[in-house]
Amino acid sequence: MDFLSAITAKKFGKTLTTQQIQEFAQAAAEGTVPDYQLAAMLMAIRLNGMDARETADLTMAMAQSGEMLDPDVGGVPVDKHSTGGVGDTTTLVLAPLVASCGGKVLKMSGRGLGHTGGTVDKLESIPGMQTSLPKERFVEIVRTVGCAVVGQSTELAPADKRLYALRDVTSTVDSIPLIASSILSKKFASGAKALVLDVKYGTGAVMHSLENSMALAKTMVEIGTHAGRQVTAVLTGMEEPLGTHVGNSLEVKEAIDILSGRAGGDLKKVAIYLGAHMLCAAGVTANMTEADEKLRAALDSGAGLNKFAEMIEAQGGDPRVTEDVNLLPQAPIKRVVTADHSGIVTSMNTRQLGLIALSLGAGRRTKEDVIDPSVGFIMHVRLGDRVNLGDPLAEIHARSEVEYRHAESAIRDTIKITESEPAPHPLIYAVLTREGTMLFQ
Amino acid sequence: MDFLSAITAKKFGKTLTTQQIQEFAQAAAEGTVPDYQLAAMLMAIRLNGMDARETADLTMAMAQSGEMLDPDVGGVPVDKHSTGGVGDTTTLVLAPLVASCGGKVLKMSGRGLGHTGGTVDKLESIPGMQTSLPKERFVEIVRTVGCAVVGQSTELAPADKRLYALRDVTSTVDSIPLIASSILSKKFASGAKALVLDVKYGTGAVMHSLENSMALAKTMVEIGTHAGRQVTAVLTGMEEPLGTHVGNSLEVKEAIDILSGRAGGDLKKVAIYLGAHMLCAAGVTANMTEADEKLRAALDSGAGLNKFAEMIEAQGGDPRVTEDVNLLPQAPIKRVVTADHSGIVTSMNTRQLGLIALSLGAGRRTKEDVIDPSVGFIMHVRLGDRVNLGDPLAEIHARSEVEYRHAESAIRDTIKITESEPAPHPLIYAVLTREGTMLFQ
Repeated sequence: MDFLSAITAKKFGKTLTTQQIQEFAQAAAEGTVPDYQLAAMLMAIRLNGMDARETADLTMAMAQSGEMLDPDVGGVPVDKHSTGGVGDTTTLVLAPLVASCGGKVLKMSGRGLGHTGGTVDKLESIPGMQTSLPKERFVEIVRTVGCAVVGQSTELAPADKRLYALRDVTSTVDSIPLIASSILSKKFASGAKALVLDVKYGTGAVMHSLENSMALAKTMVEIGTHAGRQVTAVLTGMEEPLGTHVGNSLEVKEAIDILSGRAGGDLKKVAIYLGAHMLCAAGVTANMTEADEKLRAALDSGAGLNKFAEMIEAQGGDPRVTEDVNLLPQAPIKRVVTADHSGIVTSMNTRQLGLIALSLGAGRRTKEDVIDPSVGFIMHVRLGDRVNLGDPLAEIHARSEVEYRHAESAIRDTIKITESEPAPHPLIYAVLTREGTMLFQ
Repeated sequence: MDFLSAITAKKFGKTLTTQQIQEFAQAAAEGTVPDYQLAAMLMAIRLNGMDARETADLTMAMAQSGEMLDPDVGGVPVDKHSTGGVGDTTTLVLAPLVASCGGKVLKMSGRGLGHTGGTVDKLESIPGMQTSLPKERFVEIVRTVGCAVVGQSTELAPADKRLYALRDVTSTVDSIPLIASSILSKKFASGAKALVLDVKYGTGAVMHSLENSMALAKTMVEIGTHAGRQVTAVLTGMEEPLGTHVGNSLEVKEAIDILSGRAGGDLKKVAIYLGAHMLCAAGVTANMTEADEKLRAALDSGAGLNKFAEMIEAQGGDPRVTEDVNLLPQAPIKRVVTADHSGIVTSMNTRQLGLIALSLGAGRRTKEDVIDPSVGFIMHVRLGDRVNLGDPLAEIHARSEVEYRHAESAIRDTIKITESEPAPHPLIYAVLTREGTMLFQ
């Protein structure tokens, strides 16, 4: 294969052929092309882009570079993916909720890195919970229970794995075609036939700008169209943590609170909205209204909570946490940060809040870091709230006084209390499907 | 060092700092940065460019990545570099000619690759000639004889060596800042204080377009200004071979023919013009008129030819070739290609002519190829000549009937004989110095 001529084509801004892209992915998976040529190609793609057809080709080629799962789960395998946010526990709410409505939720999830949490880390705060299961067992749980959430198998999309590692060290992560194909290649390889994407934008998201987030969402929906898979992308705001709880066991607790009807708010809204799209994408319900009603009924009846308990039990965890959240790991220090002046909550640096959780021990700076499931914080205010001097801003769960104090001043710093109303910050901004884009604003 | 942040800066089209560029060159020389990061940087530079200050910094950093020669040659060491053409034997004419006028010509030259010939290869067709000499001996010859031409030492500019090898396999050769800094880093490291660059454009040049050639020339002159060295760039046309002879011993023969007054033409014109700039750049003459007169006098008196004999002898070669060109290697087959119809020589694909010489055995496809010094061809026509059916077009010197016949039909194919006059093709198009650009047209 003449990989150099493919680099040259992309350098001149030309469109790569399907064959060139297949050879690129195959070479990356098999190690037949040296890293420096892959790096040059990645930078050329980063700077000159790829069109929808090329991106779809790359997605499929990376997916097919390893094993393609095609499990029989007794229905259309549906998955949901979030581009990563802070206090984003939607998976833990909607996986059991969608399953309780007849969906087959097949979810391979990642671990947290940097300021965003990972679903697998959150689940592992449940005593006994296994997130590394043999493929057959994983599929069996999805078939019998209706949902399972496990860690990503390293065998899937090996081309993506090598390219992702290279992108990380060659400053080519921030490429929409490369991000989109990386996400979807793993999803397609894991067997998801219907997919709902939660693309975050705002201060807490990986992509800060609405424009880039829209472009990423659009690219992923187009890949789905090219690849013959049902892909729906929902753009949601991340100008403040989605839920009120940030931290691993704290987020499990919040998911249980929502499933048991004790809590609501933005997290619940987004979970139901994404869940409804999952039911529609999988063909379980005919339309969004029917899906929405079904999901709310499952919440009211406790079917969602029961399903969560079933999933936990199937994955080796202690299902009693769904009835008694105090069985989850508890931090030794729980103390409230209060407002040091009155005013309106005008803005918060959500990424900074994620980093505060990280510094408390809830996240990882490097892949090798060990997380503490018990730490984090519970937000008591949301954007636009009026607070008085001494009102609680957040409750910090810390391992030590030193870490508490550091988090206390950092949280005070990041929550801006002024006399100005916050900028508009719609929760659900748009939904993109192959039929088109609907904006809500 | 944080090389990733330098890649990121260039990816976003920012200007790299002097320190970042120094670290880049040093890392390349010392191997402290992996190839894939260098490759990503090279592609980012190829696509986002570098300004004059950055390019000058890279040139000096690459030059200083290894030994910087600063030889005492009893005058200002002057060098000439051609970007590579076909039938371009100027070095063999002007090195002795400039030396015979008092210049100190310190020339490290390359070998041929692809369609262009290399001066070192040409010299080696002289029996006994050594082009790989100890540094001290090389400097001594320049000091005593006035000129020496040797192969490039591998110790010079090691950063350029590693980057050049990487550019070759990552499709990043065609970057003007990278070409300019690669050329000049080696020249500055070899001790040249004054430098005349012959930048070719046209079908036989590495750069086909006038625009790119002008940009390259301008960039190299700017580097000289930043680096405090006297750099002059001359733009010359390469729409047909410069001399009439193409092939290694044939080009030595043509150089001797010019130095002995038996031949003239475009090669002589360009050699005298470049030589005059060398004398001025080195401060040997006060102006171009004086330099031109001095060079012509050296030609007429035979001083240039004598100097060539002296240089050959000093480098271990047989100086009698300057009196008897038949001592040079001779090909077994010498036969004339004739025109198969009448008309005007409208155009020729000069690059193709270079490739024909290569296929006769005069050049290298890969660095490992062994060249045959005896083969090549002598052109009997130039652009604009009127020819009749049966008139000689060229005399081919070949090793075998098969190769002769292949070259015969290829030469007929590449010389277009029609009823149209050729497009204008100025021989010397422009000269660029730090004072400005002069166009001749």
